[in-house]
This record gives sequence, C-alpha cells and structure tokens, in this order.
Amino acid sequence: MKKFFSVKDVSSVADVVQEALALKAAPYDNQDLGKHKTLGLVFLNPSLRTRLSTQKAAMNLGMNVMVMNMDKDGWALETQDGVVMNGSTVEHIREAAAVMGEYCDILGLRSFPKLKDREEDYSEDLFNKFIKYCGVPVVSLESATRHPLQSLTDIITITEHKKTAKPKVVLAWAPHVKALPQAVPNSFAEWMCKAQEEGLVEFTIAQPMGYELSKDFTKGATISTNLNESLKDADFVYVKNWSSYQEYGEVYTVDEDWMMDNEKLSLTNDAKVMHCLPVRRDLELSSEILDGPNSLVIKEASNRVWAAQVVLKRMLEDLV
Amino acid sequence: MKKFFSVKDVSSVADVVQEALALKAAPYDNQDLGKHKTLGLVFLNPSLRTRLSTQKAAMNLGMNVMVMNMDKDGWALETQDGVVMNGSTVEHIREAAAVMGEYCDILGLRSFPKLKDREEDYSEDLFNKFIKYCGVPVVSLESATRHPLQSLTDIITITEHKKTAKPKVVLAWAPHVKALPQAVPNSFAEWMCKAQEEGLVEFTIAQPMGYELSKDFTKGATISTNLNESLKDADFVYVKNWSSYQEYGEVYTVDEDWMMDNEKLSLTNDAKVMHCLPVRRDLELSSEILDGPNSLVIKEASNRVWAAQVVLKRMLEDLV
Amino acid sequence: MKKFFSVKDVSSVADVVQEALALKAAPYDNQDLGKHKTLGLVFLNPSLRTRLSTQKAAMNLGMNVMVMNMDKDGWALETQDGVVMNGSTVEHIREAAAVMGEYCDILGLRSFPKLKDREEDYSEDLFNKFIKYCGVPVVSLESATRHPLQSLTDIITITEHKKTAKPKVVLAWAPHVKALPQAVPNSFAEWMCKAQEEGLVEFTIAQPMGYELSKDFTKGATISTNLNESLKDADFVYVKNWSSYQEYGEVYTVDEDWMMDNEKLSLTNDAKVMHCLPVRRDLELSSEILDGPNSLVIKEASNRVWAAQVVLKRMLEDLV
Repeated sequence: MKKFFSVKDVSSVADVVQEALALKAAPYDNQDLGKHKTLGLVFLNPSLRTRLSTQKAAMNLGMNVMVMNMDKDGWALETQDGVVMNGSTVEHIREAAAVMGEYCDILGLRSFPKLKDREEDYSEDLFNKFIKYCGVPVVSLESATRHPLQSLTDIITITEHKKTAKPKVVLAWAPHVKALPQAVPNSFAEWMCKAQEEGLVEFTIAQPMGYELSKDFTKGATISTNLNESLKDADFVYVKNWSSYQEYGEVYTVDEDWMMDNEKLSLTNDAKVMHCLPVRRDLELSSEILDGPNSLVIKEASNRVWAAQVVLKRMLEDLV
Repeated sequence: MKKFFSVKDVSSVADVVQEALALKAAPYDNQDLGKHKTLGLVFLNPSLRTRLSTQKAAMNLGMNVMVMNMDKDGWALETQDGVVMNGSTVEHIREAAAVMGEYCDILGLRSFPKLKDREEDYSEDLFNKFIKYCGVPVVSLESATRHPLQSLTDIITITEHKKTAKPKVVLAWAPHVKALPQAVPNSFAEWMCKAQEEGLVEFTIAQPMGYELSKDFTKGATISTNLNESLKDADFVYVKNWSSYQEYGEVYTVDEDWMMDNEKLSLTNDAKVMHCLPVRRDLELSSEILDGPNSLVIKEASNRVWAAQVVLKRMLEDLV
Repeated sequence: MKKFFSVKDVSSVADVVQEALALKAAPYDNQDLGKHKTLGLVFLNPSLRTRLSTQKAAMNLGMNVMVMNMDKDGWALETQDGVVMNGSTVEHIREAAAVMGEYCDILGLRSFPKLKDREEDYSEDLFNKFIKYCGVPVVSLESATRHPLQSLTDIITITEHKKTAKPKVVLAWAPHVKALPQAVPNSFAEWMCKAQEEGLVEFTIAQPMGYELSKDFTKGATISTNLNESLKDADFVYVKNWSSYQEYGEVYTVDEDWMMDNEKLSLTNDAKVMHCLPVRRDLELSSEILDGPNSLVIKEASNRVWAAQVVLKRMLEDLV
C-alpha cells in the first residue's frame, strides 16, 4: 500500500477488516517489520484520537514516531506554482513535503477543509501535492473530504458487534452548533457503499433536506429525509453532524428532533449506536444513550489503533 | 497502586522512599516491566520538570510515552453532567478520559486550580472524574490541591541529605508577585505530617498571618507566624510561596523579611535549603543561598525522576 | 566533543565529513552507544528540519529523545545575575539549564537573535550561559550567530557532489522580504574558510554593498559585490539572504538582479545550487533551478541527519 486516502486504496473491505482483527489479537507480532522505520505525523489541525491511536499503532509495529504539530498560521505553506513568494507563505509544499519524506519512511497528514470554497476543498490540492512531492507512502489522518482511518475503524467495529450476516447500518445526521466538514460522513458513506457491494451491510443515509452529501460518496446507498422511517430495523446507527455540501459549509436551523435519543432508539432493532467523537452530549446524541448499553463509541475509538496498524503494516510490507 | 494523588496512596513513606533510592541505584533493572506498556501524559497546563522527569522515568522502565499538551482553551472539556453541550466545551470528560484510557496503560494528568472558587478547586472535580472515567491507573502531575510527585521527591531528598535520624524540617512561606496555588505546600505538608507520624522528621510551618493552609493538610504540624523562631535548629528549610486559602487566592502585601537569605540561614542548624522550582531569585530566595553550598534545589529536581519511577513501577506491578 | 557551536569545535573538517559519510553508509552500527542515553532538544524558536533530522540521528544511535518547544513568551528566562526577579521572567537560566542537564545526557538548544542589539546578539550570552550551567554536552540547533549543523551538512553535501578536488564555492546573497539573521551565512563562511585552509574548497562571498558579514567569520574568503563576476567557474552556489551586520538587522532595497536563476547559472561551471531551506521561490531562487537538475536542496536537507549523527556520536563517545 502506497497511499491510504479513500476506500479505493483497499481491494477488499472484508480482507482488511480481518487483517485488522488479527492484529488486535496479536498486536506485537510484527515488531521486526517496523524496526528502524520512522513514521512522521504531520498535523495542520488539532488531533486527540488520531494522534494517539496512530502513534500507538506504529509503536506496536516497532516503528519510531515523530510528531509535527504545525498549525497553518505558524507554518504557512505555499501550494501554488509560479508564485513569487514575497508574502506570508514561508515554504512551498514542494520542499516541505520532499524534506519530510527524506526523514520518514511513512508520513501521515491531517489537513481540514476551510469550508469557504467547495471546489478548492474538494480538489484535495494540498493533500495530493503532499503525496506527490514527499515521495513516501502517505496515510490520511483526515483530509478535506475524507477520514479513512475512522471509516475503517467503523467497519471493524461493526464486524465485531454484528448479530446478523448483513446488518442494517444507518448514517443519521444530527444537530450541532458549528459548521463541520463532510469528511467523516463522506468517508463513512464510501466505505459502507463498498461494504454493501461486498455483501457485508445494508446501508441507509438519513439527513434533513439540504444536507445531501456529494453523490461521489453515496452511490448505492438508500437516502432518505425521514429519520424515523430510516431507523426501522436498524442494527447500527452512526450519528454525525455535517454542514451542507450544496450551499457549501452552510448550517440551516433544524429541528432538535434529529438528536438521537432512546425514543428513536426504540424504533430500531435494538441498534448499537456509534459516533466518531468528540460528541456534543444532548445536542447530537443523548447522554442516556452514551451512558447506556447500546453505545459503542468508546470501543469504536479503541479500534482506531487496529485500523491504523493494519494500514501501517501494509505500507511497511510494501517498502522496498 | 491504582492512583497516586495524595499521601494516602502510599501505606509507608519510609518504604516508598527506600524503593525509590533502590531504583536510583539501578535505574534499568525493571525494563521488562514496562515492555509494550504506554504512559500517556496529559498537560492542561505547562510543565518542564514534571514532563521531562516523568518521561525519563517511564523510559527507564522500558515504557512508551505519549505526551498530550492541551491547554484549556484549545480543548475545552465539559465536566458537568446533564448539560446540553451547545456552548464552548467540545468534549465531555466522560469520553475524553475513557478514550485516553483505551490507548494508554497508565495516565498522568496535570490540571491547575483557577484560584477563583475555593470550593470548586478543592473538590478536585476534574481530577476525580478523569480517574473515574479513564479506567486505568492515574498519576497526578499536579492537581488543584496537591503535587504528590514533588512531595515524594522532597522526602527522598531529605532522606538522602539528613545528618540526624529525625531532622527538623521547616516549610517557610516566601514572597512572590503572582497568586500561586497551594498545591505544593499542601502536598508537602501532608507528606511531612505523615513522615512525622512515622518518626522520620519533625515538621514546622512558618507563614504570615492570613496564609494558613487548610487544616486538612497540616494535622500534626507545628504552625507559627514567626519565621525566625521557626528556623531555630532547622535542618531543612523548604521555601515556597502560596496565595491565601482563607481569602481564597488573595495576595497580601508582605514584608520582604520573609525572603530566605544567609542572615536567616544563620539562625538554623546549617540547614539545607529546598525549593520545588521555578524560583524567583532574590524575591523568594536569595542568589547567595541558591549558588551556595546549602542549596539542594538542583539535586531535588534531579530526584523527580526517582519519585516518578517508583510510582510508575508500582502501578506497572499492579496491572493485570 | 563537549560542545558543537562553531567550526572551532572540530579539529579537521575533512575528518568529520568522512565520519559522517561512514555513518550514512551504516546508520545503525552504533546503537549500543546511545543505549539508555537521553537527548533533550530545547527549541526557543520554531524548527522543522533541525528538529526532525536531529531526532532521527539520535534514534539511529539508539538514544531516547525528549523535545521541549518553549517559545520565549511562555517560558521567559532570566539571564542576568543580581536581578530581583519580580517581573516577567519566571525562571533563571542557572536553574533551568541545570535541571535539564540532570534529565538529559546531551542537550540541543535553538535560540534565534532578536536583531535589535548587535552586541547583545553577538555576545551569545544565552547560549553561553546555557552551556555553562547545564553541565552536559550541548549541540547548537542554531544560535544568534551560527547554525553549525547546517554548515557541516553543507560541506558533507559538497564533498559528495564535487567533481574536482578543490571546487569553487560561492556564497551568494539573495533578496527576501524579511530581516533574517546572519547565523546561516556566518556559519557557512567560517566552515568554508576552514575547509579552504584544509585545501578542500576555494571560497568566495558575493553580496551587495552594506551586507558584508562580520570579519570574524570570513577570514580568507574572496569577497565581492559583483555577483556575475563571482559566479564565473563556480562549482557550487550557496544562495541565502541575510540582513545587514553593519546597520544591524537592516534590510536595504535591492535589485531583483540578486535572485539566482538560470541566466546566472549559465555563468557558472554548471554549478550545483544549494540553500538551507525554507526558500522563498522566485524571490531568492528561481523555480526553474529548484525543480531542475542542478538543485541539491533536498539532498542537502537529507544530509542534516548525518551531520547531527556524527556530532552526537562524538559526544556519546566522550561521555564518561
């Protein structure tokens, strides 16, 4: 594996999940693989779960880890070519990425969207240029449009907790006070659509009018604006807020009815409830669910380690 | 050991000191104990000595270390239950602590008091909830009311440098320009009171009127507002500023006479002088003492490693 | 080696370069040397290349690394003696350095000049006091007046890429929008002058009037204000901006003619072009050069590892 950016970077969802679960059962069996190999984690935005779980995964594989926390103000990167750099950008991504590639065998990059210009964000220009110029395998730690380590974690968690061969999974939009990226739901949708193709799940998205995700991520999904209807027979409910894709970055006033609570849970097939965290309690998801037996959120966060570890393991195996 | 928060978390001060000194003599004898174990150090406030010494101690034990520097602004935690999280807090401590507990075998937490509301600070609400929800052993890296790694360091240092079986130790208040927490003196007092019970020291506190510490920490201590009188026959003088506990967080104008200098040192039994650092030179403590033969401040800071190492060792031994 | 601050800390440039190239050929041959040894990297200013490459070098040697990012605001150090510390400085360098020396076997320090007061910057007061009080070997990660790890890297890179026994090396001033320190060119100049003495290079400095470096660093160099003339027969061109030493920290308006581009390159002996990075594209150095076959900038950055590794190796060998 040379790149882990979207679901297209794995040939079989089922296979990568099984490999991750094997690592979970024997975390230290591949320590030789990472010996004298260095993982560089570059954060242009804050991180808790991703940073710790990926670092842990790398250490489980015997790798060294170097973390670079670089917010965009402190280390303004130029991404455009042919620009006279006499302004605020201090280094071109051509040099910055290439240099980091010299010090690291594998790089991870986190770069959030600005939510101002859809075309710019969805071009994934920064991310693609980073991959192009660094010259080493790159794992996405969340980009403008996707969060693939989270999505791989989610399908691992669903696999562990499913009671039927082909559970019904519902991605349910939830309210929030801030404009959040579409990265997590986009990514979850594309992984679930692929899992559905492989016969692993049945996938539905429920969101209010105006919050439809880009069709590039949702092909094959059942899409509805009726949450209660969608929740019927659900085995897993994946709760998440996102801002509008159509009116890019917009937050419409919405009914609190979209918050997931026990009343809605009663409509499901005793569904397990998931969330990528951090979660706004009693705004996105009720405390009664989070503190109750149906919540998988902590187990889900815990599985981030195995998602990262299987990706790093595959990358290490492909290093010459 | 499941928790290291106060002196109550050790059954014998004498024993833990001897075990720390044994580790100092053979720092790498327990490397197998920490193999594949991860220490997470969470700083909600800045740290120099605590961060480096605890990291060093963990590495001596063969552990991996992950450091998270999270100031309260950047990562505002909700601690109250039943709150609709539609404001500035981005994650509830229930989730944040639980997730970190999934990635780490032992956690350390630093969280200073706000010095606004005594009841809130002294409830140690944040710290207690962190312990409750993270599910793994927690070592205090300084909380609102205590700094136990510092106090354990101090009794280790006193043990190394004492010339008599039961030295006289004086905690001496000193001037400062800022309002400082009571955490260090509270903690020092409770450890010295316990050490006095065990027959290890004789303990006196000297502070101006209005700077009395909470009685919860000083039971058994001789307390005086006469510094010169207290210094008589002292073998160790522990210099430290703190703000008022009664008029919570208040700083009264005080006489510069409370600064420790050679004139006052002459009243003692050629006492060794200690301070937890950082120290304001010639405000709290004179340069002539700090640069002279009676100062233990650097040796004291150095011993922070062995205090942390004995605590981590005990926690590792108790992991199932 | 007890200190790596200037070219005076190596007896032979040729020898240290050969030792570095031997490490590059066998990076992990000295892992026992660093076992249970700790490198502390203290950054009072930001760092990308220096931080990562030095960390990597230490890990190659089997060392543990602790990084401390401390900007001057957050951790204001007092450097003057005899001052009553009742102001904004929170710790004296006497204590801060000594304490870090207790936790680390080797320390690295980065501290940029303020570019306000030449005498203060060129006294290297902070750096010298840090060395004096920490009590362990110190490697400069760039100080007010020098960046020796960069310069050692540069001579390593020149040695690898030279086509003649004694190549002509030109340090060429280039435009910039900000006032930059003289540390990199000072350091490059003193290393090149020493290399010239050893018969390894022929060294020329070209800069506009008013940008002459301090004579303390340039003894033996050919100095010119005519760039085109200087470039004739050049085998290596080292492009770098710096602010004025005479009118300290001043930036004069200069002709864009000082930017290095292909036209100027054609005056040379097909010279290799170097820059310490970060580089302002099409302001200091043209994109056509940076993206072309004559650029060494990425290979140069890559060699930072071996410069750091040879210095750390020598320091480890000298530890008692």
